[in-house]
Amino acid sequence: MNRQDHSSAAVQTLRWREGRLEMIDQRVLPARFEYLPFTSAAEVAEGIRSMVVRGAPAIGCAAAYGVALESVRLRGATREAFAVGLQRGFDVLAASRPTAVNLFWALARMRAVWDANQHRAVGDIVDCLLAQAHEISADDVRINRAMGAYGAALLADGARVLTHCNAGALATAGHGTALGVIRSAVQAGKRISVIADETRPFLQGARLTAWEMVQEKIPVTLITDNMAGHLMSRGEIDAVVVGTDRVAANGDVANKIGTYMVAVLAQRHNIPFYVACPLSTIDLAVPDGAAIPIEERAAEEVTGFRDCQWAAKGVQVRNPAFDVTPAELVTALITEKGVVTRPNQTRIAGLFAD
Amino acid sequence: MNRQDHSSAAVQTLRWREGRLEMIDQRVLPARFEYLPFTSAAEVAEGIRSMVVRGAPAIGCAAAYGVALESVRLRGATREAFAVGLQRGFDVLAASRPTAVNLFWALARMRAVWDANQHRAVGDIVDCLLAQAHEISADDVRINRAMGAYGAALLADGARVLTHCNAGALATAGHGTALGVIRSAVQAGKRISVIADETRPFLQGARLTAWEMVQEKIPVTLITDNMAGHLMSRGEIDAVVVGTDRVAANGDVANKIGTYMVAVLAQRHNIPFYVACPLSTIDLAVPDGAAIPIEERAAEEVTGFRDCQWAAKGVQVRNPAFDVTPAELVTALITEKGVVTRPNQTRIAGLFAD
Repeated sequence: MNRQDHSSAAVQTLRWREGRLEMIDQRVLPARFEYLPFTSAAEVAEGIRSMVVRGAPAIGCAAAYGVALESVRLRGATREAFAVGLQRGFDVLAASRPTAVNLFWALARMRAVWDANQHRAVGDIVDCLLAQAHEISADDVRINRAMGAYGAALLADGARVLTHCNAGALATAGHGTALGVIRSAVQAGKRISVIADETRPFLQGARLTAWEMVQEKIPVTLITDNMAGHLMSRGEIDAVVVGTDRVAANGDVANKIGTYMVAVLAQRHNIPFYVACPLSTIDLAVPDGAAIPIEERAAEEVTGFRDCQWAAKGVQVRNPAFDVTPAELVTALITEKGVVTRPNQTRIAGLFAD
Repeated sequence: MNRQDHSSAAVQTLRWREGRLEMIDQRVLPARFEYLPFTSAAEVAEGIRSMVVRGAPAIGCAAAYGVALESVRLRGATREAFAVGLQRGFDVLAASRPTAVNLFWALARMRAVWDANQHRAVGDIVDCLLAQAHEISADDVRINRAMGAYGAALLADGARVLTHCNAGALATAGHGTALGVIRSAVQAGKRISVIADETRPFLQGARLTAWEMVQEKIPVTLITDNMAGHLMSRGEIDAVVVGTDRVAANGDVANKIGTYMVAVLAQRHNIPFYVACPLSTIDLAVPDGAAIPIEERAAEEVTGFRDCQWAAKGVQVRNPAFDVTPAELVTALITEKGVVTRPNQTRIAGLFAD
């Protein structure tokens, strides 16, 4: 399918078709736009691990569907075999990627449905699990639109907004978190231009964020990750908006590797640094950023990109996929319950109080 | 030629063979190790522009040889035709790249030789120009070894040293500036490990710095440019050493895009930030970094790497090749006349006083 055929408004990162999950293969965008089918929890876990789907909210949705798929597969099983098989599905999904907390949040929501319906017939449990997966996805879009409305108010007409990685429609069930804020601002009539960090090594900025913005005719300028400081020093960036994979109870933000660097530069240049953060991404069980597990990925991602390998043979590699931005560098969290300026433990706890 | 056949100690970035200049094609390293021949100033200028050769000191040496080559081409010409042709050679070389001041410094040295020998026979002028080009290259290696000795004293045994771009043998006539400091420290018996930023978009770190270090068995770890902050925050970097393309009279440092970001992060983490800087790279005519011209290069460098193009079609691109690190972020300049801590106008002027 040609990418010209698709506006990202129409893009569904995940969709349920004829009893199976289909997800856009984000490893090959924008050169190819295609859906891959998934029929089991193990397949979905592999899709998460290999980054067919990525972005914390989208990973959460995928995991929920992974549990639902596994339950569909086990529909004809005895109650005991169903329980054993479904547990195995939960386990394989939980082991797919460690950093984004939405994965564990979504699995917990699915487990709660299972727990509440254990007494019912297996077929009814399957129906409840699938309904819950659909609901998690639908909730995600609603939440992103609410965050977008709050966040849009923070951006001035004419703002030049830097974003890192892709926290767009492709990172969620739709609309996006950081790009959702930008979309909502544009829909509110503001002229926004986007500066997209390419986001090595997986190039989510160059491939996914740039693609989403081009599709919607929102002006977008691509830079390599090491150019943000230069543009800030020349007064060419007015705000930063990023997504997040996990926010600790004290407001420390884990997000795609390089986010911390952008936050440090933004502070030096007095540029507001906003984090679009659904409540599902806040992990009150983790006191601060030091306790967030940081995934290290394969060396081949750093020594090149896909088949294009350019590094000198024999070099060692580090490949942390995320870093931690301390709360002190965060101007505000944008959540579906409103904007939390200068986030700290008390203010974050307040989000969950009522 | 296979790269296993070459240790970088044996590597000559530029060499004079049978009346022509040969330069390693740095665009294709490390996959291919090959020399390209150059026979005129225009060819050398194109080699500089297209980055067959890069690195401020190497560009200076190449430009000097470019003038010498042009004079050799004009050896049979009348004095008048020689003067016109040689001036054209100076002009085309001066227009090749704008940021590295060594280019203009080397051309000025060549022009001084021409001026001082104008009364002599054309053949004698040619001999003087070629001798001067050889001398500039030989001086460069001597200067790098002197800087190396001063800089090595700044690195502790066991230091983990981050470097950005390639300021190695390949960026000079030999030994290197920033990597020269590391080489000298290793030769002095210190155990040094190198962390190399890959340095998008041209990937000098992944391709050239990693290659040089692997050749000499100096431990080297490759990271993407956006990982430096994470490693610093985890206490995994002890010092930063980089080269420079031009230092202003006040100590502001122009260097490869991304250097500024590293300097800001180093300051935050109290990590010393050293700049290896031959006096030929200091431009007293430029009061501060704002006056240093910053080259913008082609979009195709940012939308991919060589034939591997991955960005979304329709995206705009910025591609500044350099940025400016203000003097306040520089712990010390390492020069062939010694180490200048906390560089400022007075201290830099002092280098040229005696």
